[in-house]
Amino acid sequence: MNTLSKEQIFADVQALCERTRLGAPTLSLASHAKRCKALVAISEALRASEGEILAANARDLAAAAENGVPRVMLDRLALNTARLAAIADAVKNLKTLPDPLEGTESWSRPTGITITRAKVPLGLVAIIYEARPNVTADAAALCIKSGNAVILRGGKEAIETNRAIVNAIKQALRTVDISPDVVGLVEITDRESANALMQMRGLVDVLIPRGGKGLIQNCVNNSRVPVIETGAGNCHVYVDKEADLEKALTVTVNAKCQRPSVCNAAETLLVHRDVAQRFLPALFSATREWNLEFRGCPATCAILPEAKPATEEDFATEYNDYILTVKVVNGVDEAITHIEKYGTRHSEAILTEDEVTAHKFCDLVDAAAVYHNASTRFTDGEIFGFGAEIGISTQKLHARGPMGPEALTTVKYRVYGEGAVRK
Amino acid sequence: MNTLSKEQIFADVQALCERTRLGAPTLSLASHAKRCKALVAISEALRASEGEILAANARDLAAAAENGVPRVMLDRLALNTARLAAIADAVKNLKTLPDPLEGTESWSRPTGITITRAKVPLGLVAIIYEARPNVTADAAALCIKSGNAVILRGGKEAIETNRAIVNAIKQALRTVDISPDVVGLVEITDRESANALMQMRGLVDVLIPRGGKGLIQNCVNNSRVPVIETGAGNCHVYVDKEADLEKALTVTVNAKCQRPSVCNAAETLLVHRDVAQRFLPALFSATREWNLEFRGCPATCAILPEAKPATEEDFATEYNDYILTVKVVNGVDEAITHIEKYGTRHSEAILTEDEVTAHKFCDLVDAAAVYHNASTRFTDGEIFGFGAEIGISTQKLHARGPMGPEALTTVKYRVYGEGAVRK
Repeated sequence: MNTLSKEQIFADVQALCERTRLGAPTLSLASHAKRCKALVAISEALRASEGEILAANARDLAAAAENGVPRVMLDRLALNTARLAAIADAVKNLKTLPDPLEGTESWSRPTGITITRAKVPLGLVAIIYEARPNVTADAAALCIKSGNAVILRGGKEAIETNRAIVNAIKQALRTVDISPDVVGLVEITDRESANALMQMRGLVDVLIPRGGKGLIQNCVNNSRVPVIETGAGNCHVYVDKEADLEKALTVTVNAKCQRPSVCNAAETLLVHRDVAQRFLPALFSATREWNLEFRGCPATCAILPEAKPATEEDFATEYNDYILTVKVVNGVDEAITHIEKYGTRHSEAILTEDEVTAHKFCDLVDAAAVYHNASTRFTDGEIFGFGAEIGISTQKLHARGPMGPEALTTVKYRVYGEGAVRK
Repeated sequence: MNTLSKEQIFADVQALCERTRLGAPTLSLASHAKRCKALVAISEALRASEGEILAANARDLAAAAENGVPRVMLDRLALNTARLAAIADAVKNLKTLPDPLEGTESWSRPTGITITRAKVPLGLVAIIYEARPNVTADAAALCIKSGNAVILRGGKEAIETNRAIVNAIKQALRTVDISPDVVGLVEITDRESANALMQMRGLVDVLIPRGGKGLIQNCVNNSRVPVIETGAGNCHVYVDKEADLEKALTVTVNAKCQRPSVCNAAETLLVHRDVAQRFLPALFSATREWNLEFRGCPATCAILPEAKPATEEDFATEYNDYILTVKVVNGVDEAITHIEKYGTRHSEAILTEDEVTAHKFCDLVDAAAVYHNASTRFTDGEIFGFGAEIGISTQKLHARGPMGPEALTTVKYRVYGEGAVRK
């Protein structure tokens, strides 16, 4: 059991942040070639450490099973040879992406100065996430690719696995002359260590929470470090009266049922009243294999006797489960208004063959990604072609949508003169 | 006197935000040509309304003088024909800048989808600022240029002037078929109206505070709307042992004395111990005309008997006044460490003829702008060539340094398919 006081945890986390920041220049000033060499070394070290990592993972799994951790979480925690190889490959593949720090611009001004605008790493990135060992390697690799030092604070169930993975990463960094301190693991997995990280303003440049709504809201409300909000996805599919109902059926089923636990899965179906009578029973039949639960507005319940009445709360909830709320609407305007009210600005889809209606929806719906005749499930850094993602931003500032390596950079202006002064 | 309750003020501000947001699509979907037409119309309306605006300004000035507002603030508040013409010109000149919403990228993915990444306005921008009528016109114009609706909350001393300026802007918007609601003025200048704006999460997309440290800290600590921090500038000039002392003198005097009240003015001089003996007396003589007050470390006081001892607090304070804190340092490393501890990541300068030392300083100092042999006073949107600025960001996320129209945009992904689903 953890017997550290709040003050001790704070001091420990602060010391870790300071040490990590101190090592950062060996990475932030490294060339892209050197950063990529580090990625390859890490990939190899992960494979070479398979014995230690899988043994550590077995200890984590045994403890988690003993503590009654749910099956779905155990599955996310579990590693095996194939999964570890996939993780190692993903790390190595990052080297093929362009250097996110490339693209310095330079210009002269009549005042006798030359200005360059360079892309630079954010500095020290901290990530708080759940018991998913793949995130440990992914996040460290994305930060190294973009020249950032990183503090990893994973879920307590994965602590042994994370320690083994981070050990392998540190070994690899030593071989390429980058300080192993640039990847720091918070070994205290008590809730207080997350709270301490949120207070590291000035030491940590950005905090990225990845996980449930509670974690993200806690960070947004309490962090003194700038936060990038990720993941909350109350996503909608709107089936217009001009929809091709076959496409609409395929897309709605995919958006809802292919993997309901993730943020880009649909939660609510909005369906035009002119097609609801045909579409809803077809959707009900098509989703029987998943035993999808329908919660609907009164019009929906009148068409589908199997639907339960939906509450206001239902429309606002991201269930991440085999539950679909349904509302019959009068047209695209009502759909847009509903999404404005309940959506989380993540991913929103319209099914229609009418280009004007599609444009209206795509222009006026305020979300990171809007879809025309395609499933919301595509919002993903890999699928968008960014190679990897550190999360999906649902905010508008800094980064929006899937965040690849470039989202971990900022700019710096360098100004040169020969004693230039302002008149 | 203001007799509205906190609740009434909240409701008023909320209603204004809702009305402004409702009008926003007439601007956000307008072409660049139309937005520029609006800028020209506003520029002309400001000139045509000179009578009303100057009369309103005279009322503000009379009230301010009666209330004992300091002379320097009265000067910032005062308009005349020439100043109003300059404001009108600045608005019109924005049309020559490139469209910040230009640059849509588009690509296809093997999964049967086409993705476009478009630049879009942030949505509704709110600005809280002091009694400077030029900011009213500038901020509105920058938001219109970038397709954003805007809520203006200026200082109470300028309320009559601001109302006259915003009236002119609204008249002009009507003539170009853009809703006059897209520019909203908070007419309640009570502190509660600023607090209310900070609570408009979901309605206001970003809040930009421009003004003193107190205002900015209040927003950072209490706003539920995302904030972009601007302006705090505890800037340093480091004079290295390899400096050309003549350049160093010119630049230090300019950085400190040319306009000490602004954020990019220097507050602290760090001087290498090998040149302090020569440089400090020369600087003291050169600044006699401004009666510059020196507050120094013990070594400084030993060299300059006129210097008062500097406290820890002095080194951390942005005086914006004719006060210079001075520290004698052992070299560039100590200078970098001092800036890391006391700087606000705004603008930092090194004076040296040694390229290696200059590079070290420019690489390792973590600030929006780093200067080599040039004055910190250059950090400015106009001078950098961005045409105008809505503020100078001292944060790393979203925007850093002078913020031109582009800082008021985000991205939106549009995804097209023919019933595409994720496998």
